[in-house]
Order: sequence, then structure tokens, then C-alpha cells
Amino acid sequence: MPDTTTAPVANIADFKFLEDVKVVDFTQFEAGTTCTEALAWMGADVVKVENPKLGDPGRRLRPGQPDDDPYYFHVFNANKKSIAVNLKSEQGLALVKDMIRGADVMVENFAPGAIERLGLSYEVVKEINPGIIYAQIKGFGEGSPYEKNLAFDMIAQAAGGTFSVTGEADGPPTRPGISIGDTGTGMVMAFTIVSALNKRKETGEGHHLQVAMQDAILHYMRTNFATTGRTGKPAGRAGSKIADTQSAPKGLFPCAPGGSNDYVYISTSAANPEHWNRLLKVVGREDLIGDERYLTPRDRVANEAEVDEIVSNWTRTQSKYDAMEKIGQEGIPVGPVLDTMELNNDVTFEQRGIMQTMVHPQHEPFKMPTWPVRVDGRPTRVEPSPMLGQHTDDVLRDWLTLDGETVAELKKDGAVK
Amino acid sequence: MPDTTTAPVANIADFKFLEDVKVVDFTQFEAGTTCTEALAWMGADVVKVENPKLGDPGRRLRPGQPDDDPYYFHVFNANKKSIAVNLKSEQGLALVKDMIRGADVMVENFAPGAIERLGLSYEVVKEINPGIIYAQIKGFGEGSPYEKNLAFDMIAQAAGGTFSVTGEADGPPTRPGISIGDTGTGMVMAFTIVSALNKRKETGEGHHLQVAMQDAILHYMRTNFATTGRTGKPAGRAGSKIADTQSAPKGLFPCAPGGSNDYVYISTSAANPEHWNRLLKVVGREDLIGDERYLTPRDRVANEAEVDEIVSNWTRTQSKYDAMEKIGQEGIPVGPVLDTMELNNDVTFEQRGIMQTMVHPQHEPFKMPTWPVRVDGRPTRVEPSPMLGQHTDDVLRDWLTLDGETVAELKKDGAVK
Repeated sequence: MPDTTTAPVANIADFKFLEDVKVVDFTQFEAGTTCTEALAWMGADVVKVENPKLGDPGRRLRPGQPDDDPYYFHVFNANKKSIAVNLKSEQGLALVKDMIRGADVMVENFAPGAIERLGLSYEVVKEINPGIIYAQIKGFGEGSPYEKNLAFDMIAQAAGGTFSVTGEADGPPTRPGISIGDTGTGMVMAFTIVSALNKRKETGEGHHLQVAMQDAILHYMRTNFATTGRTGKPAGRAGSKIADTQSAPKGLFPCAPGGSNDYVYISTSAANPEHWNRLLKVVGREDLIGDERYLTPRDRVANEAEVDEIVSNWTRTQSKYDAMEKIGQEGIPVGPVLDTMELNNDVTFEQRGIMQTMVHPQHEPFKMPTWPVRVDGRPTRVEPSPMLGQHTDDVLRDWLTLDGETVAELKKDGAVK
Repeated sequence: MPDTTTAPVANIADFKFLEDVKVVDFTQFEAGTTCTEALAWMGADVVKVENPKLGDPGRRLRPGQPDDDPYYFHVFNANKKSIAVNLKSEQGLALVKDMIRGADVMVENFAPGAIERLGLSYEVVKEINPGIIYAQIKGFGEGSPYEKNLAFDMIAQAAGGTFSVTGEADGPPTRPGISIGDTGTGMVMAFTIVSALNKRKETGEGHHLQVAMQDAILHYMRTNFATTGRTGKPAGRAGSKIADTQSAPKGLFPCAPGGSNDYVYISTSAANPEHWNRLLKVVGREDLIGDERYLTPRDRVANEAEVDEIVSNWTRTQSKYDAMEKIGQEGIPVGPVLDTMELNNDVTFEQRGIMQTMVHPQHEPFKMPTWPVRVDGRPTRVEPSPMLGQHTDDVLRDWLTLDGETVAELKKDGAVK
């Protein structure tokens, strides 16, 4: 089991890859916020434009109940600023247009048609700033029969195929427990935005970028589409096995003390015959080396239930950490099933800066995953998610050079807060 | 059911956002190839450096068996070039170093230590080209107790937490059927690379980028970590339901004719009381509007089994497409569970260019998902995955200005093929 007692501070940096990039951020919930948070991790100046009343609905997932969940907002809005603007007021809308005039990127993921009704369609915005990268994230694509439909992550995942390949072979389709419809979509858009910025340095040209969550999921389903290419059939589901596998043992094996996540995944390779022999040694069954029932990967697939039992008889006597260590050091691909608490308690993530504690002026300190890529050996620093309107004054001063008096006037008029 | 009879050609473009970017690509299988394919979709000049014998092992997942699966390689290597170089030969290694000298990016995802043993560690490469963005993808991070371990997608997913949140509440942890450990990791790296390139246009400075698949998965698990922040407990699994939901009905509902993927996902919102009343109308149970047993979201969660039965009694009489249409047009979030064949057969993806047919000189035409983001209304064009060494001559001429005679000599010496 990993050491959970000490957490030396990682050598953290502030990534400045996008420090010259200004982003006007109209995103909410997860898909859009993921996109702009990625830009913020890279050092972009990301300003969330929020309504002064409640802000991003992701700030409070349970309206009317005590606000015990700032965590959801934290994980999608680290390192951003917030300005509270009433877009329904003429002055508020004019201010936002001024921000757009000086911005490099605008991102939104409102319901279909909403940004246009606010008076900030691409046609309007490109008149204000022809060089802007204008990015829209929706549930379904323009031209899809469902283009006007609302979508949340699980809707897009169902319609994008992930449910159909997840779950037991004889059971119902199952939701993958991660919001790939949201974060996965945010990532393809963030990548396209920065690619567009790369070209814009030369041409100065703006672009209109659009992605649908259903479409983005197909990108994460490419292995499954390859399977369909080969078989001519829908890609199936097989619990934790790989459907149509070429090798055994491959799958989950139960460990001590038998808790709901006490398993290791072992994946012996069809291409490396030594994996099986080495595994037999680890599990104390050298007597089966050379046994014809289990000689080739094909033999082992044919006798998979027996093979799995041979391995399980040993894994049941080991903690998942011990099993991982003993199998892994023999060069056999293996991993323990870890849950979010176990990952939280593994101090090596903090030592490496992959998890950091967000220190927030209002909420409890919160340890969370940060940007996973290290640059020159260092992770990027987490900064707190913004309070609603926390940076209204700063942004009006720094982006629009408004003086304190003007800002006070705007607040009195209810244009900003 | 969507129209499957006609497929007008989408208005396809060639994205040129990264046309000035040269990538030396040492990637294989999925995580690395996803990263460089993303760069290729954006127009980068991506050259896969492959060993002349077999190339990327992703070209043939079943060694020794007939090569009936080019699809796996296609989906991860569209729009790239291939040069076949013997890195064990002095001449071959020197050639690759010459390519690196003129490149902007180098990416590799070999097993831990392998690229260093080949003589192409970051220390060596930055001597050759101090401005290069040098990107490495591994299973586990430097400083992790498992840093030397091999990892495939399912290993990284188990150790990154996705299994622990997928599956039935009372069942074992379950593999999400998508290779998020691979494609998800490739995406965070591709995004960081283009961000680094953005800065480099100013500074000329190179960087060493590193990501681990286990770490990258935490990024896709942020919602689950937020849950743990709130509850202090591991995020759980709940089949296709959302654990600790605030609203019902929310989940999968069975449709006619009862096939293994004949379901719709319906997600009524706690914040919009009209969803339930409208749904009652759709399912022909206006008589229950105002019924106290189901009045508030909390009431419906308390009586979820009854609520689900009320809705299921109707959905069982509908195809998933009909259910989607009838529920969706009332503004209620809903999506059918679609499998890869159904998605393949839905011609609207082709009409929009989200799926395109790869026409390959050697293999059958293959319809596959392409880059999901549209630019100015247009998708980017798919080009065939390269045959092994297909571009050896072109690359040696275009990148290194070698003449035909020199290339012939190199081939004779076995340095390239």
C-alpha cells in the first residue's frame, strides 16, 4: 500500500504557454467549462461572464438546498476569473461587447439558440472582432435530426455509443461512470482553439468552431468502430473482459479482503508467451508450466474459466497493492482497481503535483486533480475557482481601462455586480 | 429512425492550422497515436518513424494470424506519413537525428526506458534541437511507485479510478468500454503540445512534456473527485443511474422491440418541474399530474421504482427512435442508446462529414469517425493511414533534401526501407 503519511511539496510552476491569450467565457456545467479551464491551466486570461443573480448553474447543483457542494464548481473552474454582468441590460451587453473586441477567444455552451437570442451570435461577434476564435459546444450537431435537443453528459453518451459497449454481456447497456461526454468534448474543442490560434498568429483570421457532444464521443469510440469495421457487427460489451480477446488471463481478479473495489486487472499478452509462465510462478503454480491445457494464448482463452480460477486462488490471498507489486515486478501488465478515496489518500499524487490543494477564500481547502501533463518536470499551479463577480473590478480596469468611478456607476445601474 | 438511404457529400475542408508544424512520431498503439493524429487532423506534417520489419505493432494486433484488421491502425493513424527506418543501424539513427534537427515536435509512447536505450533521450535530442517540443506518454508517472510498470488502457483505467465508478451498485467494478486511458491521454498531451508551440513562436524555446495515463484519467474523473469532496467517501457506481440523484425519472428505459440496446436515457431535471408533467402527457398518464406521490423531485426519488414503471410501460411500446422524438420535442433531455452499427448506418453523420470513408490503396474503403470539430461550418478531410514506409522517399527528399541516389544507397544498406 502506498505511503500516505507524508506529502512533500512538488516543484510547481505557472505555465505561461497561453499568457497572451484573452478568453471571454460564457460556459456552464462541464463541457464548456472544461474547455476554458484547459486554456486557463496553460496560462490564458479566462474571464467567466456570469449573471449577477446566480452565476453558472454549476455553482449550485441543488437549487434551494444548502450550498454544500462547491467542489463541482471548483474542479471545472480552477484558475479562472469571474465578472458578473447583466446581459439583459443595454450597458451590460455593451460592456461584454467591449471585452469581446479585445479578446482572442470566446467560448459558449448554452442551450441551442440561447447565445443568439442574447445578441451575441457569431455574425454579430465577428463584426465586432473579425479575428476572434468563436467556439460553440452543443449536444447534437447542426444538421443532426436532434440539433434542437437539450443534452447532458449521459444523453450524449447514450446517443454517442458508450453505453452500448459498457456493462455485462448479458446485461443492459451501462453508463461509464465518467463524464466523457463533457470533459472529452471540452478537450477536442480546447485543442482546436489553440490550433486555430497558432495559425492566427500568421493570418490574423478568426474562425467559427462548433462541436457536438454526440460527435465528440465518436472520437473516443474509435477502437469500437474499428471492431465494427472488422466484424461487420455492433461492438459489444463484455463486463471487464475485452470482447473477442486473443489472450487469457485478462480481466479483473478478486483480492483480499474482498471489498467492493478489491480487484486487480491483469493483462497477459498474446505476443509474449513468457507472461503466462512468469504469472504461474508468482501464483505458486510452477507445476502448470508447460501444461498443455494452458500452453498457448488460444488454449488459455478456450479454458478461460479454469485459468481465471488458478489466478484467483492466489489473488484472493493478497491485497490488491501486494498483488500489483508482485505481478508488476515480473513485467506483467497489472493494475489495482482504485477508488477516489484511495487515489486521494495516495500521497505520491501530491508529491508529483498531479493533485494539489485548492486554497479558497470562502470554502474549505480541497485536494483535486490538476492538469496532468508536466512541463520540464513540473506541474502547473492550481489557483482557486473564482467567487461570483470576484474580478468584476479588475477585469473592467485591466481589460477595458475603466476607472473606479465609472465602475461604481455601472454597479449602481445594475449592469455589473 | 434516421434516414439511411442517401448520403450527400459534406462540404469538406483541409484544416491548415498546423501546416507549419513538423512532427517526428515514434508512437504506437493508441495513446501516442491519438496525440499525433490530432496534430495531423489540424494539418501538421506528421511522419511516423517505424521499424522496417513490422512497423507499429498496432498494424497487426494478432501476430501470426491473417491480417484482417487494418481498421484499428486506420482509426489512430489517419492523415499521417510513414518512414521505415532501422534505428539499430548507425545510418538509420543518424537520419532520424537529422529529421529531429528540422522538426518542431517529437512524440513517443514506448515502454519506460526504451527511447533512452535507442539513444534518443530528451537530453540527447535537445542537444540536437533545443527548440523541440519533446513529448512522452507512459502508463505511470515519474515518481509513482509504479513508474517502471507497463500499462495498457485497461490497466491505467483500473488504476485511475474509472472501473470503481462503473457498473451495478451491487456488482463488481466494470471496464468502461471506451479506451479513455489511451485517447483521453493523447488529447491532454496534444493540447499541451500546441499550447507550447504557441509560446515557442515568441521564445523559440523547447520543452520536455510528460504525461502518465493514470494521471490523465484523473482529469476525466473530476466529477467523481468532486463527489468525494462533498461526501468524504469514495464515488460509487449505480448502473445507469446517477448515484445520489436529486431527481427522477432519470435513467435508462426499455423500448420495443426489446433488443440488447433498445433503451432511451431520460433525464428530467430537479430544477424544471415542468419536465415531469410534460412527460406524463407524452406517456399518456395525464391523470397523474398533481398526484402527491410524485409531486416534487424528492417525492419521485422516494418512489423511483413506481415512477420508472409508469414511464417504462409506455417506452416499451415505442422504438427508441420514436421515444426519443416524442419526448425530445417536449424539451425533455432524452437520448437513445445507439450502438456502433446504428451510428454507422445513420447517414446524417456522413452528411455532416463527422464520419467519412477512408479510401486506402491497399485495404477496403472504411467509414470512420473523423475530427469532430467543424471550422467555419466544415469538417476536415480524412486521408488514408500510411502503408509501412510509404513515404520513405518523400520524407528523405522533402525533409532532408536527399537525392534519389543517396536514398537508394540507404535502402541497399538496410538503413531505411
